Amino acid sequence: MRRGEHWMGNGSYERLERRFARIGDLNAAARTVRWYSLTYGPPGGEASRGHQLATLGGLAHELLTAPEAAEALAAAEADEPWQAANLREMRRLHTAASAVPSELVEAKARAVSRAQAVWHAARPEGDFAAFLPALRDVVERTREDAQIKGEARGLAPYDALLDIYDPGRRNAEVAAMFGELEAVLPGVIDRVRGGPKPPGPEGPREGLERIARRMMAMLGLEERHVRLDESAHPFSTGEQDDVRITTRWSGPPGEALMGVLHESGHALYTRGLPEDWRRQPVGRNRGMTAHESQSLSIEMQACRSRAFAVHYARLLEEEFGPEGAWEPGRLYGVLTHVEPDLIRVEADEVSYPLHIAVRHRCETALISGALDPADLPDAFDDAVEALLGIRPPGPREGCMQDIHWSGGSFGYFPTYTLGALMAAQLAEAMRAALPDLDREIERGNFRPLVGWLRENVHSRGCLDASSDGLVKQATGRPLDTGAFLRHVEERYSG
Amino acid sequence: MRRGEHWMGNGSYERLERRFARIGDLNAAARTVRWYSLTYGPPGGEASRGHQLATLGGLAHELLTAPEAAEALAAAEADEPWQAANLREMRRLHTAASAVPSELVEAKARAVSRAQAVWHAARPEGDFAAFLPALRDVVERTREDAQIKGEARGLAPYDALLDIYDPGRRNAEVAAMFGELEAVLPGVIDRVRGGPKPPGPEGPREGLERIARRMMAMLGLEERHVRLDESAHPFSTGEQDDVRITTRWSGPPGEALMGVLHESGHALYTRGLPEDWRRQPVGRNRGMTAHESQSLSIEMQACRSRAFAVHYARLLEEEFGPEGAWEPGRLYGVLTHVEPDLIRVEADEVSYPLHIAVRHRCETALISGALDPADLPDAFDDAVEALLGIRPPGPREGCMQDIHWSGGSFGYFPTYTLGALMAAQLAEAMRAALPDLDREIERGNFRPLVGWLRENVHSRGCLDASSDGLVKQATGRPLDTGAFLRHVEERYSG
Repeated sequence: MRRGEHWMGNGSYERLERRFARIGDLNAAARTVRWYSLTYGPPGGEASRGHQLATLGGLAHELLTAPEAAEALAAAEADEPWQAANLREMRRLHTAASAVPSELVEAKARAVSRAQAVWHAARPEGDFAAFLPALRDVVERTREDAQIKGEARGLAPYDALLDIYDPGRRNAEVAAMFGELEAVLPGVIDRVRGGPKPPGPEGPREGLERIARRMMAMLGLEERHVRLDESAHPFSTGEQDDVRITTRWSGPPGEALMGVLHESGHALYTRGLPEDWRRQPVGRNRGMTAHESQSLSIEMQACRSRAFAVHYARLLEEEFGPEGAWEPGRLYGVLTHVEPDLIRVEADEVSYPLHIAVRHRCETALISGALDPADLPDAFDDAVEALLGIRPPGPREGCMQDIHWSGGSFGYFPTYTLGALMAAQLAEAMRAALPDLDREIERGNFRPLVGWLRENVHSRGCLDASSDGLVKQATGRPLDTGAFLRHVEERYSG
Repeated sequence: MRRGEHWMGNGSYERLERRFARIGDLNAAARTVRWYSLTYGPPGGEASRGHQLATLGGLAHELLTAPEAAEALAAAEADEPWQAANLREMRRLHTAASAVPSELVEAKARAVSRAQAVWHAARPEGDFAAFLPALRDVVERTREDAQIKGEARGLAPYDALLDIYDPGRRNAEVAAMFGELEAVLPGVIDRVRGGPKPPGPEGPREGLERIARRMMAMLGLEERHVRLDESAHPFSTGEQDDVRITTRWSGPPGEALMGVLHESGHALYTRGLPEDWRRQPVGRNRGMTAHESQSLSIEMQACRSRAFAVHYARLLEEEFGPEGAWEPGRLYGVLTHVEPDLIRVEADEVSYPLHIAVRHRCETALISGALDPADLPDAFDDAVEALLGIRPPGPREGCMQDIHWSGGSFGYFPTYTLGALMAAQLAEAMRAALPDLDREIERGNFRPLVGWLRENVHSRGCLDASSDGLVKQATGRPLDTGAFLRHVEERYSG
């Protein structure tokens, strides 16, 4: 049954759909304003855009927590699975938003705003002493936030934070999975590390951009609905019919193209969300683990493969001629080169989970209170040394390299690695269902792959209550490290 | 006294400032979304953006008309002139928005949405029969709207529409001014018409864009706060710290540059609005007549002058070398070429008011009911023939050439010509205060000119209750046709 058809009831559910459609529109407008800020917006206009975002967020929060919303949520009944899932998501969002007093929301927003400014100023010199007071403030507000949210739901504080980014995810299982990865990956790295990163493909900017657009077309991302722009850090955002990705052209060209493929994976997810539910909570993505699984399904699973190296080499030769050509095996070597490095965003597929494990160790300790923010630099560097065998020369390449903590995003980091695990687990199931997949990828035919992801992931929106529910319906079991470790073993075995 | 300082009262005024700041933020976010739609937004994303705009507009309307707003407006007191003016603007906006039932607002929005789609489809063939039912619907809804708004304020229906775009403006004075223009301009055209438009400056796109950016810098528009992009039709929008203008590069290069100068005049107004009041109603522009006076102060008064032709020729030669150079006198001839044409947006300065007079005649008759929409094509063509001496071959070049009426914007057209009159009247006062102005313009020094406009127009926001109030404080008398007719006489006398 499509939504709205033949549905009878006390009207509460329908009022909720109207309310949440407006909340969805406010959030979508905020995404447009943020995209504008990060791409084209003149730098001097941050004040206006900050006011717009604060008002859009404040009004969405008021619509979500209004007494009328609470009443309707108590009274509403759903007739069929999509409506029931929608109602479940509405209740989840309402409960989370209602738990925290608005004074704390505002205090955290102020702390974050200050910490991000301080971080931007202090990072180039790695001046942790300058950053510490602002960081301490954010950690304290986040701990209060986690405490209150946790109490309202019967969750430990850090679980309440994880739940924001990956609903249903609990730290016990996350910690166990990191334990399994930490037991295996350092040994793999020792076996296959290849020294300094070899140079990748090169070519003039226009040609690279043409290849990027051909890759997007190859993935089925239509210009009618999807934009590619430039920004300081690649990101993706937008709505089901209006998707925007960015990449950074100033770095190594091969990395820019891999950035396009990564963000294209996110874009495919957004494009494939259920159209019928597009302004409703159930029509949104199933959290950050699921989202990252889609970018990594494209970038890591599909496009850093031997099969894709064949097609990629063809694109390079078509665009740049013989002098820009690459032998597919050599290109595959660049795409799968492994060497521990200090910077997370430049890490290879094998080192990356260890970078995340470092952050997971530190942030769980910060939130539990076991680690004082003043001791973060040493704790961070010790963990890097223990897991990656190298030691940051200072906070710039250590605990100050990422923006997340100054932004109050504790509980977000794990989703990068959980997404990698999920991408591997989905890829195993997909390969079982599509035995010819590598042959198609070699030819640049991504229709079978994207079709499988669309059916098993994208089009389900939030029909499943958690990313574990989603991965279970697609692969037959909840998320674990098995497929990822088999993938690492296979790709890096020789 | 700056806002917020030393102010005491019952708190109603302060609550209103907070409420209207949020309304201002919603309107600003809507401007960002619309700008995105018209510049970079993928065409397939119109549905999402339409929902966002409807929700942003609906929430702004609810905040404006809420019972709490009415109560606070009844109780509020203001201590000083800026606050009093802000309160006056708040009351005006609240009264206008509250007068019309939301059913009519929505019915008009639906009629407009349909009519614009039909207009886009039917205009290329000039298929008025296809357009008529949709147009009739918009006219009927607008007449109801005008009737209700007029009754609430003791105004005639068309005056209620004029008041939307130029608060305080009444049709009696508008009609009288058009009468004066119609009595003089056709004779001027007969005297000075120059046949087919001569070709203007040419050059490669990159060079033209560099000239455009040099012109913007010349006017004091800083890249930190002002963007230039491309769109199908030039427009300007944005906030005091985040201004966006566009031009169209596909037409004649000289027109694209004149478009940049025109929109830069609008941008200067937005940049010069009072910073202290930037999210408040009193911090906004003083309506469409005042806004157009600023674009025409730059484009028509300053930049189609003999003095600017000298600087413009210098820019062309610096950018394109001897082969792209123009003799200033010949360039001035192109900038001030007069010949009646069927298309309003391509009209010269002398013909333009007659195009507007045609539309003013037609729309006042449509709103009064004296003209049935079915008879619009004949009435329109008759008026064009009477005033410009040429007759459209069909509705495409006649009553279907503009988007305004399908958009329900009746009462908007006159502000184009009222803006031209205001620009001329301001220019007379400015020249009296700045006797060396032409010498500075010849050198490309716009600081005195922009400084005068900033002091006398931009920085006043809505301190004055009407554009007539604004023009009176700047020139000593309300708006009339005198300065414009003297300007035409002087510029086109030989």
